[in-house]
Amino acid sequence: MLSKSQVKYIQSLGHKKSRDEERMFIAEGPKIVEDFLWNGSVGIKQIYAVKNWLDGNNKNTGDIDLIEITEQELERLSLLKTPNQVLALVEKFELPNENDLKNKLSIVLDTIQDPGNLGTIIRIADWFGVKDIICSNDCADMYNSKVVQATMGSIARVNVFYKELLPWLKEQDSIKIYATALNGNAINDFGKIREGIIVIGNESKGINDSILEIADEKISIPRIGDAESLNAAVATGIILSHLV
Amino acid sequence: MLSKSQVKYIQSLGHKKSRDEERMFIAEGPKIVEDFLWNGSVGIKQIYAVKNWLDGNNKNTGDIDLIEITEQELERLSLLKTPNQVLALVEKFELPNENDLKNKLSIVLDTIQDPGNLGTIIRIADWFGVKDIICSNDCADMYNSKVVQATMGSIARVNVFYKELLPWLKEQDSIKIYATALNGNAINDFGKIREGIIVIGNESKGINDSILEIADEKISIPRIGDAESLNAAVATGIILSHLV
Repeated sequence: MLSKSQVKYIQSLGHKKSRDEERMFIAEGPKIVEDFLWNGSVGIKQIYAVKNWLDGNNKNTGDIDLIEITEQELERLSLLKTPNQVLALVEKFELPNENDLKNKLSIVLDTIQDPGNLGTIIRIADWFGVKDIICSNDCADMYNSKVVQATMGSIARVNVFYKELLPWLKEQDSIKIYATALNGNAINDFGKIREGIIVIGNESKGINDSILEIADEKISIPRIGDAESLNAAVATGIILSHLV
Repeated sequence: MLSKSQVKYIQSLGHKKSRDEERMFIAEGPKIVEDFLWNGSVGIKQIYAVKNWLDGNNKNTGDIDLIEITEQELERLSLLKTPNQVLALVEKFELPNENDLKNKLSIVLDTIQDPGNLGTIIRIADWFGVKDIICSNDCADMYNSKVVQATMGSIARVNVFYKELLPWLKEQDSIKIYATALNGNAINDFGKIREGIIVIGNESKGINDSILEIADEKISIPRIGDAESLNAAVATGIILSHLV
C-alpha cells in the first residue's frame, strides 16, 4: 500500500525544480527500466511495479528497493497517459564537466523546447554514435519524463550538457562549427566528417544570429516540395546520416 | 454565444466514426488554418475564432461561415492542450481513387499507429516532393487532430490513401518496392531513384513478413552506436534524403 507522502514525492518529480533539488528523475515502462537495469552504471534507487513485471525481472534488480503496487496505484503515480507496469526512481547521471570534443562529431541544440524532439534527438545521436549533445540553457530539461520516454533508453548512453552557447562555442575555436540554415550549402555536397560541432536550431526561429555568425559552414537539406520546414529531430537524423 | 449542440458536434469530430459519417475534420491554430485558407482547394466550412484572429484575417475568408468566440469557449471546443486562437471545420479531401505511381517515388506505411509519426511523415513527404502515401488500414486516421496538427499544413498537399497493403502491392508489379529492414543494404549504397515504392514499417514490429517477401530491395540505415531503433518518421526522412 502506497503512502500519501510516497505519491506526493513521486508526483513532485514531474517538476524540474524538484528534480534539481532531489537530483532524481522518473523513468517509466518496461523498455526503458529494463534498458537501465542492463546498463549497470545507471543509478536506479527504487522500482514501483505490478506483480507481473516483478515476477519476470526479480533476477536483474540486485539490491534495488522494490515496491509492488496495483495497476490503480500505478495510475496515481504515473506521469504517462497509459501507465505501463513499472516506474523507476533514478538518480541523475554524473556527467563530466567538460568533454573533449576533438576527433569526433558533437551536436549543439539551440532552443529545442519540445521534450519529444529533445528525446528523439538523443536517441538519434545514440544510433549514429554521437556521444555528446550540448544544449542551450533554454532547451527542454533532459530529465523531463517526456524526454526520458522519447529517448527509449538512449539517455543513459549520451552525455547531455547545458551551456550558455555563444561564449562556450567561442572557446571551441579549434573545432569546425556546422550550422543548419535554410540558405546553407546542400548536405549532399558535404563528404563524411570526422570532427565537428553540428548546430541544430529552434524549429520556428532557427539558429540564433549571433551563433550563425561564428559558424564555419552552413548546411541545408534541399527542399523539393512545398513544406515550410522539417521537424528538428528529423533534420538532425538526416544531417547525421549524411555526415557520419 | 455557442450552443450546446455546436459544442457537442465539434467535440464529436474527435472520434473517427463521426469524422467518417460527417466527412468533416478539425484543424486548429493560425498556422494550419491560414495555410488551408491560402490553399483554395481545401474546403473550410466554418471558422470559430477569437476576435483578434478574425480582425487579422477577415480579408482571406471569402464566404466561409465565421463565428466569433471567447478564449473560454475556444477551450471548450478545442482538442488541443493549448488552444490557439482559431479552430476550423474542414470537409475531408476528395482524393482520386487511384493515383498513377509511375515515374515518381511513393511511400507505403505499414501499421504506423502513432498520430504524431503519421503527421510528421506527411510533412516530410511534402518537403521532399513525394505526392502519394499509401497507408495500411490499421495506420492512424489521417484526419485525427494530432495527425492534422503534426503535418503543419502539408496534409492539404499530399494524397493519403488507405489500402489492404499486400494485394494492392502485388498489383503494382511494374514498380520496384524498397522495404526498410534492419538487415537491408546500407542506404549509402543506393543512388538517387526516380521511380519506386518505399515501405516503412511499424516501429517495434517492422514490416510485415508477407510484404518483406515481395520487396525487390531491402534498405537499412547503418547503425554506428547503440540505440535499438530509430523513430519511424526520422527513418523516413533519412531514406528520402538519400533517394530523392
